[in-house]
Amino acid sequence: MAKPPGEPLICEKLWTNARLATFSTKVAASYGAVEDGVIAASGSRILYAGARKDAPEFMARETIDCGGRWITPGLIDCHTHLVHGGDRAHEFELRLQGASYEEIARAGGGILSTVKATRAASEAELFASADRRLSALMAEGVTTVEIKSGYGLEQDTELKQLAVARRIGRERPLRVRTTFLGAHAVPPEFKGRSGAYTDLVAGPMLDAVAAQGLADAVDVFCEGIAFSPEETARVFAAAKAKGLAIKIHAEQLSNLEGARLAAEMGALSADHLEHLDEAGVIAMAKSGTVAVILPGAFYFLRETQKPPIELLRKHGVPIALATDANPGSSPLTSPLLVLNMACTLFRLTPEEALAGLTRHAAQALGLQDEIGTLEAGKACDLAIWDIERPAELAYRIGFNPLHTRIWNGQ
Amino acid sequence: MAKPPGEPLICEKLWTNARLATFSTKVAASYGAVEDGVIAASGSRILYAGARKDAPEFMARETIDCGGRWITPGLIDCHTHLVHGGDRAHEFELRLQGASYEEIARAGGGILSTVKATRAASEAELFASADRRLSALMAEGVTTVEIKSGYGLEQDTELKQLAVARRIGRERPLRVRTTFLGAHAVPPEFKGRSGAYTDLVAGPMLDAVAAQGLADAVDVFCEGIAFSPEETARVFAAAKAKGLAIKIHAEQLSNLEGARLAAEMGALSADHLEHLDEAGVIAMAKSGTVAVILPGAFYFLRETQKPPIELLRKHGVPIALATDANPGSSPLTSPLLVLNMACTLFRLTPEEALAGLTRHAAQALGLQDEIGTLEAGKACDLAIWDIERPAELAYRIGFNPLHTRIWNGQ
Ligand SMILES: [Zn+2]
Ligand SMILES: [Zn+2]
Repeated sequence: MAKPPGEPLICEKLWTNARLATFSTKVAASYGAVEDGVIAASGSRILYAGARKDAPEFMARETIDCGGRWITPGLIDCHTHLVHGGDRAHEFELRLQGASYEEIARAGGGILSTVKATRAASEAELFASADRRLSALMAEGVTTVEIKSGYGLEQDTELKQLAVARRIGRERPLRVRTTFLGAHAVPPEFKGRSGAYTDLVAGPMLDAVAAQGLADAVDVFCEGIAFSPEETARVFAAAKAKGLAIKIHAEQLSNLEGARLAAEMGALSADHLEHLDEAGVIAMAKSGTVAVILPGAFYFLRETQKPPIELLRKHGVPIALATDANPGSSPLTSPLLVLNMACTLFRLTPEEALAGLTRHAAQALGLQDEIGTLEAGKACDLAIWDIERPAELAYRIGFNPLHTRIWNGQ
Repeated sequence: MAKPPGEPLICEKLWTNARLATFSTKVAASYGAVEDGVIAASGSRILYAGARKDAPEFMARETIDCGGRWITPGLIDCHTHLVHGGDRAHEFELRLQGASYEEIARAGGGILSTVKATRAASEAELFASADRRLSALMAEGVTTVEIKSGYGLEQDTELKQLAVARRIGRERPLRVRTTFLGAHAVPPEFKGRSGAYTDLVAGPMLDAVAAQGLADAVDVFCEGIAFSPEETARVFAAAKAKGLAIKIHAEQLSNLEGARLAAEMGALSADHLEHLDEAGVIAMAKSGTVAVILPGAFYFLRETQKPPIELLRKHGVPIALATDANPGSSPLTSPLLVLNMACTLFRLTPEEALAGLTRHAAQALGLQDEIGTLEAGKACDLAIWDIERPAELAYRIGFNPLHTRIWNGQ
């Protein structure tokens, strides 16, 4: 941007003396990096983000000297199950004590224990427990979080989960996107009748969710132990008819070609993907569907089949990362640890990993015009870090160098 | 303890309405757990820790209602390399970008880059950078930390590292034990002459360390790429002649039977141990040498050979855990994550894992009479947690439920 002549531009906040990892595709350097950068915010928006030498003259109400610190876009956790009752610490312990699956089931373990606890919990209880986990995410720079339902598996509880997620978005200083995941598992009431439960999800449950405006997207767990591709397609068709975005849990434990199905139906993202094959990758590339990689679940479940990172690169599929924060397979609430796990376990580069919690995560939520990069016009969501280089964020394990977190310019 | 009659006992602090994970061998329950417990402290010492119903009557200057929270002993990180210059984030990134070992060496990577940075750093710089990492440990309840030298590989810098570690112990509210690890690697000045460098370590360097009282123990990295068992034995003999405890880095990459050697010489602990065999385990059991397991390095280096947990259990070798916080192979500063990794990767139970950061870690430092359990007479080092059961500490990933940390009664 050439310096315009004339009057200085009025802005509320001006961050100076910063190094920017803009993740803008218009900046050629790794990380879209800009040395000696400034960011100007007007209200909740970025007015300017770039090199000081190219910046217009600003008249700022408040100027913050960043002391050479790095600024990244606020982190985006694009796949969580943050709102749920109970935890599974006891089950974790029983397993490690050598209990059989039967014994764990008898002790009330498995996803149904979370369903039971979530059904029993009040909205206030769900809010309070989610808020603790949310605070951990925010303490590491998260400014946008996606939250799924899926532990009700019946209408009232699914609505309750989504209402709590919406309330978090109203009451806490971050952006919340909600996803209706009624098709997370077949509830005990419909054991052996997944088709009938699918009818309910795609019919009355989705009607209620849409009528109350509680969801931004609809997700399905497409897997042998959950819903078939045909059932998945039915839910997606119903979601699209309501104008809702679609997402999928696919290819985590086997390859049912759910990602291809979702891509062909225009999904924002396909998530997990350990067993994805090249045909699926190509379908995703064609539709612009983001691959959301969830190393926490891979680690916690001690999986060995890794997602096909090389194929995703080859075909140019954007890779996002997320915590998958959930009580059963990924009780993980550290986005920084997700960076490290993606590098250590899946050999992403630190730059790819950070893009996965910023630019590509925004795209996985359909918010690429709003957030995910440091560019004029986008929401002023910033994470300011006490680091010497961006790779440090992925290198360290269990260390939080966040200096300041800014959401919507505040 | 039966209630003594007569006057109430005076104490400074009284924690009530707590659940205690005492880790006392005198308490039969898992975790040495006591429901409805109280802890009384007189000065820096525990006066009483146990059930309320068995407690004498106390007259306390300050009473703290713990609201049913769990109290564990303050956590003990018994193996760290916390004091060092620089970091290896750039090397981490180069590796993930596919750089060859040669390219990384040319870019100044490897342990020698840390040696160079540590030699170049002032004491003030070393203190400041270690303090940031230490703060991360303390934020998760650490009240005792062991700190090794080993990035000087020449006398002045080794002394400087140990002096900084001692200064941390004076200036920060936690207990520091220092370990002289001059035999961490063969320095470039002695390339191909490890024997001559060993003479220096076991001779003048150790003399200087001992004369200045800078070390509580002496450690050697016994490995093909470092020091042979014979060289290790020479350092140990010299250390014992000075009255210093001994510890060993052994069987991490291969089985040189370093653990057996160290055990036979009366070592406090043998650390890493991925390649330890049953003969080594038996030798450790015989000598009471603690096995210090370091899952962070296993994870970060993507090792596949796991330490022989089952054999350690079979022969009753106490298992401790530690962060191994170091820039090259374990840039990890979260003891809670160590718990999770030990359970997830090595299948320890949560109780074993927590004992590894409390009772057994104390033993690995020779401090079993001072710390590591909640028992009368020990230092009043407490970690008070917002959890429903101790297993939660190992189950969650990247979540810190610490409520309060107490060191020496404060
Ligand atoms: Zn999920
Ligand atoms: Zn070490």
